[in-house]
Amino acid sequence: MPISVYKLYFSPQKAYFKKLKNILGFVPGNIRLYQMAFRHKSVAKPIKEGVKNSNERLEFLGDAVLGSVIAELLFKLYPYKDEGFLTEMRSKIVSRANLNQLSRKLGFNELIEFDARMISYPNKQGSLLGDAFEALIGAVYLDKGYRFTREFLLSRIIKPHIDIHTLEITETNFKSRLIEWCQHNSKDVLFVQIDNPEGESAKMFSVKVVVDGEDCGIGRDFNKKSAEKMAAEKACEYLNI
Amino acid sequence: MPISVYKLYFSPQKAYFKKLKNILGFVPGNIRLYQMAFRHKSVAKPIKEGVKNSNERLEFLGDAVLGSVIAELLFKLYPYKDEGFLTEMRSKIVSRANLNQLSRKLGFNELIEFDARMISYPNKQGSLLGDAFEALIGAVYLDKGYRFTREFLLSRIIKPHIDIHTLEITETNFKSRLIEWCQHNSKDVLFVQIDNPEGESAKMFSVKVVVDGEDCGIGRDFNKKSAEKMAAEKACEYLNI
Repeated sequence: MPISVYKLYFSPQKAYFKKLKNILGFVPGNIRLYQMAFRHKSVAKPIKEGVKNSNERLEFLGDAVLGSVIAELLFKLYPYKDEGFLTEMRSKIVSRANLNQLSRKLGFNELIEFDARMISYPNKQGSLLGDAFEALIGAVYLDKGYRFTREFLLSRIIKPHIDIHTLEITETNFKSRLIEWCQHNSKDVLFVQIDNPEGESAKMFSVKVVVDGEDCGIGRDFNKKSAEKMAAEKACEYLNI
Repeated sequence: MPISVYKLYFSPQKAYFKKLKNILGFVPGNIRLYQMAFRHKSVAKPIKEGVKNSNERLEFLGDAVLGSVIAELLFKLYPYKDEGFLTEMRSKIVSRANLNQLSRKLGFNELIEFDARMISYPNKQGSLLGDAFEALIGAVYLDKGYRFTREFLLSRIIKPHIDIHTLEITETNFKSRLIEWCQHNSKDVLFVQIDNPEGESAKMFSVKVVVDGEDCGIGRDFNKKSAEKMAAEKACEYLNI
């Protein structure tokens, strides 16, 4: 009996194997890697002092492998664009917002284990899905190697789910990104004009972004709109959006 | 006759093939990639509007591939360290200072083409070698694939040239890194205490780093030593050290 048939129909973890196969399109080898990829640190156990069996180390690895696969894709897709363009395009593709959305589309929310009490802060919740996405890439890489991971990413993830040419013309608008994210997650967002720091020119505007009562970023500029934009960018970074 | 014999002994570019083989330990496939990896933009020609046949695009790709290989190495080398440690270790390994030094050790300075008049600024010169190193990794990847590049990096570069356990205990000291770099490149470096910006507390110290007459970074802190450290860090970043 082939090992994949055993895993899907007879192993004690057949339900988990089936779920993964449906989502990923292949039967995992070492299932412990995948379980770890979907385990948030809020439910992880210490394996040695200071380290837990959470997905954070896999996320570090997966982030790097993903970066490499996307770099090659863009390098070949845009033979006449400079490295500044390639860098910007990659940031758009691997942005937390994009990876969160991808994770949701792929149904990772059914697989992620987390302690709901532990992640009541918006900045933690926001990155849960995207972090698991990167960790999964790390797991696939360790389980199956680079060539397989690259092929998996290109044919199963990027081709069906990411419209690169639309991303190309999309300006990153942090203000609308922040507002959409807050609507989606039922958070209140306020842009508050605040006093300038002592000694700052009176022509300067200082704007603070407040999400559900928490200060998430400050922007300063001679133009109020730009100050808001800057504050929104900092808030997006702070909230991992 | 095997193709590698032809390349090394009979091809019109046999001298270049031999030099590369001596440095890299293998005979390159597509030599144009390697030539491009060693071509600084100061001597590159436009291939289409806005893009030159310089090593900058290859550097983008190689940086990503290098990051991925190092991530895996550290992930496996330190099974009980968290992702913060892994990230910091990787930054140390791929720091511009480390890559410049590696490039020099490997003899890349003999291969890099650049216009000496174009790169008289210290910040340009400083990164020339490290940039070429990353571009070379991009070239090897396109020429030979991931598995080969990974093996090449691990056995030919990292094992003989990088002492990871020494790096582990090395604190990144930006001030001494800056001073060493200036000595090596015959540059004058000064740490100058300057006036605080208007409205700033009188207890604050502001320190400016000046390299060969050029302002390279400012640091501010309540402690003079920390202000210097901060200014040195900014200068290292500015000068790509």
